[in-house]
Amino acid sequence: MDVKMTAEELTAFLGRVFPQIASDFVIEEVAPRHVRVRLCVEDRHLRPGGTVSGPSVFALADVAVYIGLLAMIGPAELSVTTNCSIDFMRKPAARVDLIAECRMLKIGRSLAIGDVLIFSEGMTEPVARATLTYSIPPK
Amino acid sequence: MDVKMTAEELTAFLGRVFPQIASDFVIEEVAPRHVRVRLCVEDRHLRPGGTVSGPSVFALADVAVYIGLLAMIGPAELSVTTNCSIDFMRKPAARVDLIAECRMLKIGRSLAIGDVLIFSEGMTEPVARATLTYSIPPK
Amino acid sequence: MDVKMTAEELTAFLGRVFPQIASDFVIEEVAPRHVRVRLCVEDRHLRPGGTVSGPSVFALADVAVYIGLLAMIGPAELSVTTNCSIDFMRKPAARVDLIAECRMLKIGRSLAIGDVLIFSEGMTEPVARATLTYSIPPK
Amino acid sequence: MDVKMTAEELTAFLGRVFPQIASDFVIEEVAPRHVRVRLCVEDRHLRPGGTVSGPSVFALADVAVYIGLLAMIGPAELSVTTNCSIDFMRKPAARVDLIAECRMLKIGRSLAIGDVLIFSEGMTEPVARATLTYSIPPK
Repeated sequence: MDVKMTAEELTAFLGRVFPQIASDFVIEEVAPRHVRVRLCVEDRHLRPGGTVSGPSVFALADVAVYIGLLAMIGPAELSVTTNCSIDFMRKPAARVDLIAECRMLKIGRSLAIGDVLIFSEGMTEPVARATLTYSIPPK
Repeated sequence: MDVKMTAEELTAFLGRVFPQIASDFVIEEVAPRHVRVRLCVEDRHLRPGGTVSGPSVFALADVAVYIGLLAMIGPAELSVTTNCSIDFMRKPAARVDLIAECRMLKIGRSLAIGDVLIFSEGMTEPVARATLTYSIPPK
Repeated sequence: MDVKMTAEELTAFLGRVFPQIASDFVIEEVAPRHVRVRLCVEDRHLRPGGTVSGPSVFALADVAVYIGLLAMIGPAELSVTTNCSIDFMRKPAARVDLIAECRMLKIGRSLAIGDVLIFSEGMTEPVARATLTYSIPPK
Repeated sequence: MDVKMTAEELTAFLGRVFPQIASDFVIEEVAPRHVRVRLCVEDRHLRPGGTVSGPSVFALADVAVYIGLLAMIGPAELSVTTNCSIDFMRKPAARVDLIAECRMLKIGRSLAIGDVLIFSEGMTEPVARATLTYSIPPK
């Protein structure tokens, strides 16, 4: 399976479809069934103490799988998250970007599943892991 | 088990500990092992089309269980989410507040588990369900 | 929404489709979007110490949602579990039957979601909770 | 982190602590934070059509993380599963052993988290993925 959209195309697409959030994220790498996405951490993503909030970690996992899916099937912007399980395993480093490594485990006709490990940049132990299911609309 | 904090005390506590987000939420009801929390939907919670974003739904579920836990054990603000499973079942109504009904299923010494159903105000079918585990710090 | 199959019909159906396991379970109540199913605990369901094993608890949750789904849509035996999140909250009582209370939260065209609370018979606090998604085959 | 128990020691331990199920499983590889465990598929693990049942897949994931944990911390047999999320992604091949590849993502003082991919032997696409949390008893 080859990728159907490059990092540049995905970035442009995200900016058009989700203009409110697109600037939070950088699509750093796109490969077959794998993408890397960065959350550029700003004050609005933080909890007291400087750590990144749970909803911001969730948002990164959610975007990473969305990008990982569209990279493989093209601009199916109406795909929606139907399920997520997420484990918060370690406290993110204060005021450090988060990096999501996403692997697409299944891309079916109507459902896709992606697995995500999230790291504070420069750390080797993940701060969180998540698995998300997307429902793909019929063409 | 009686509640240890009232809705007013929990509201004041949330404003002190999470000032960035406290104004998004209204704690509407506090009872033994049950709380109801409202997300006051603003533009920043929306996706294109006016529907509430996934991270905003997650944030509401997360806050609801946090409030449901503190209501029963008092102001243990260092409690942190360790796990969440969430199902997005229906599209939220456009520009309508979300209501979370949270039931605490377990409040142990070190772990607590809460179950949440989330509704668009005025609807009878839930838009999402979530279960969250919180780790409670030792005293 | 009315039920499409009674407890008797569901019991006969289960015996025909899953003969290896049907005798483990009793369908105790069938109502719109709600079923109650009992696991008749035998030695093969136990862990050392007499407590019911995790896979047996999972099997009960899985069957309960399957029955809860078929009660509402009729004998779609090719429906399959696609996702489960389960929390084991308390140790089951030794050598006591388990009771699953299942509520169907969504019955869509292609996906159904059921929520389950599991109790050791006679106890008021649940030993486990689970949410399962079933994929419904096209007709 | 080095392993504290070898495959042979873990096999002997499993046979002593869980004699009912130990013969279902073969511990094929033990490395730091990684184990591979095989489910020797027998008739009792099957669903009609010859596919492996959901509870058997769950049992394999559960055992794999248990083994992955004990390999790193030694024989803490009272560790118990507290949470599992599992995605059933493809139909297992009929009457073929299942192989679980488990990676321990976190081994804390009181909680451990392991991630599992499950394959029908000889296939390259996973039939299931699971993440399990174990609670480790205080010493």
